Parts: sequence; C-alpha cells; structure tokens
Amino acid sequence: MAYRETEHTRAKKAHTRQRLLKAARDLVAEGGFAAATAAAVAQRSEVAAGSIYRHFPNKAELVAEVFRYATEHEVGMVYQATQTDSSCAERLLAGLTVFARRALEGPRLAYALIAEPVDPRVEQERLKYRLAYAEIFEDLIRDGMAAGEFAQQQPALTAAALVGMLAESLIGPLFLRRDKASALQPIDDPQQLISELNALCLRTVGATHH
Amino acid sequence: MAYRETEHTRAKKAHTRQRLLKAARDLVAEGGFAAATAAAVAQRSEVAAGSIYRHFPNKAELVAEVFRYATEHEVGMVYQATQTDSSCAERLLAGLTVFARRALEGPRLAYALIAEPVDPRVEQERLKYRLAYAEIFEDLIRDGMAAGEFAQQQPALTAAALVGMLAESLIGPLFLRRDKASALQPIDDPQQLISELNALCLRTVGATHH
Repeated sequence: MAYRETEHTRAKKAHTRQRLLKAARDLVAEGGFAAATAAAVAQRSEVAAGSIYRHFPNKAELVAEVFRYATEHEVGMVYQATQTDSSCAERLLAGLTVFARRALEGPRLAYALIAEPVDPRVEQERLKYRLAYAEIFEDLIRDGMAAGEFAQQQPALTAAALVGMLAESLIGPLFLRRDKASALQPIDDPQQLISELNALCLRTVGATHH
Repeated sequence: MAYRETEHTRAKKAHTRQRLLKAARDLVAEGGFAAATAAAVAQRSEVAAGSIYRHFPNKAELVAEVFRYATEHEVGMVYQATQTDSSCAERLLAGLTVFARRALEGPRLAYALIAEPVDPRVEQERLKYRLAYAEIFEDLIRDGMAAGEFAQQQPALTAAALVGMLAESLIGPLFLRRDKASALQPIDDPQQLISELNALCLRTVGATHH
C-alpha cells in the first residue's frame, strides 16, 4: 500500500505525533514511565491504539522520544537561568534553584527523568541528560575559576559531583527515604531546602566571596 | 518427600549455600548482575544446576542475597576506616578514600552495586546500601559540627549529597562517560583523583581548619 504522502498527510502525521508525545509526557509526570503504556498513550491522545506504531517503531522508541522531549525542556530552563550578567556564583545558584524548584514541584516527573529504572535504550538518553547538566556546571566552574571566584579544581569532576549531589538529595533514593519520613526531616519548607542546597553548592565549588 | 534434616545435612546445605553466594559475587565482580545467571552460578560453584533453587526460592532472591553479601562487606570496610581517634575531617577522608580506592580497583563490582539496572527486589537492597553510607557520613558531619570543625548544615542533606557525589563521580553515568574518553581526562592517576575528591568533600562539609 505504498503511496505518495501529500503535504496534508505529512502535516496531519506530525500533528498526531506531537499529540502522542505530549500525552505520553503527561502520563510520565503522573505515574512514571511505567504508566506510559501504548494503550494509555493512545487513550489519552485520542488516537486509535493500532495507529501508534505508525508513528514510533516500537514502545522503547516512543519512550526514548518522550524522554528527549521532556528533558530538552528541563535542560533548557536550567541553561537559560544561568545565562545572565551576574557573578558565576549567582549564575550557578540561579541554575540550581530552577532545577530544585522544578524537582520539588514535579517530583514524579523528576524521578522518572533522573532515576526511574528504564529500558536500556532510554538509559542512553538519560546519560546524555545528566551530561547536559554537567556541561552547564562545568562551563560555570571554569568561568568562576578564571574569575578567581571559585577554588582551583578539576571542573569536570566537580560538575559530575554536583549532578550526583542534586540527584541524590532532591530526587534519588535518599530523597525518597526522606519522603517516607523515618529519621530524616520531612520537606515542609521547600524554600529552606533550596537555601541549604545553595549553601552546599557554594561550599562545594569553593566560592570565595559570597 | 519430607524428611528430618540431620545435623550433617544442614551443615552441608549451609556450606553449599556459601559456595553459591561466593560464586555469584565473583561473577558479578567480573560481569555485573547480568553475568550471574543461575546456570553460570551453578557451573562456577560446581553445584548441580537443578539444585540451586533448593537454596534460593528464585533468581531474584539469589541476586538480592548476593547483593547483601557483597554490600555488607563494602560498608563494613568504610565504617571501620572512620572509627579512629583522629579529627572528624580525617575520619571523613579515611572513609572516602577507602570507598574511592575500592571503586577504582574493582569498578565492575562498584558499578553493579551502586548503579547497574537491576530487579526491583534488588533496588530495595540498594536503597539500604546507599543509606548505610549516608548514615556513616551523617554521624561524622554531626560530630564535626559539634566539634566546630564543620560548617553548620543539615547533616542528613549533606550526607545524601556526599553519597550522590561519590556515586556520580566515581561510578555513575558521568564516570562511565569519562571512561569512554571524549572531553574528560582519563583516570591515569587514581591517587590524583582521590586527592581531588578529598578536597571536594572537605569543601562540601565546610571543614574550617584543614
């Protein structure tokens, strides 16, 4: 049944694809990747279940695309927050604060993107995602060292450390344990947590005059 | 075929179980959890393949036991290194150095324990594992604050941050990327990396006179 795609057919197809991606992203934000089944995505986007695989070769590819779609937005927000004329310390804190606020306001999506066990195909995307944050931090640390604002250090190492620090304390297993109470403080004051994290990151990069 | 276990039968069973666990741990250290299949464990331990499930109800339970077996040893080594009469900063660095050295010398096992995607049943064990490290750090941070050695901070938050920092920079995705070269430095000098990490952690806890 090969036939020539018309302009109209192509536009319609692109539109459906966007609807599928958006529906899948909303499902992930509500219930993690486990909730983004093909059937649920079809229902949510009001697309016939059988037609999903006309847009994505398979489930793994759909999930990988949703991952890219969601993470490009997240990384973009953090990057944008750091692109100001302020000091490197201020720029670092601005990026960190956007990351933390988004994670605290949308914990299910943040967990899905950073830590939820996923298909190996998606793990590859996640590696790029964590790396994208590390690169933003690495550039800032390099600038801060050059400006004499931060301690001398190996920027790539500190950048990886910052990503791990944020992931673990805001999203990862130890945050989840915090959520379930026990010995740790509940997060009844997100602003307080963000202030603590700011101080932690400034110490980590060795900010000299802040 | 119920029968009364004799003393001898029980001892033999316990011995076989130990052999299975040790063989599984060695396989994980060589090829990750993916390599610890029931067939491989049976072959390595010279136990008849069919008898493995007399010792462990299923594969997930075998893997979870191997995880506990391996991690108790790792956590014990780090804990022991911190139990000295030195300053809190020295004790923190001693624990950190043991963790880092073991991760750099046995990267496959370290990756398997900290980050390799595993069965949800094992994820529960991993949570306890990361938490065990966090608790060692949390106690040290509390002691260091009381002694005026470290900055005032929320010890549980910094402890989670340190675990994330070590995991990401020594074992996690960003470390793996480093391994594959590209823009980051190769780790041709583990001692240098450990020194950098020491400095990073001292800054993170706000060590005042070190």
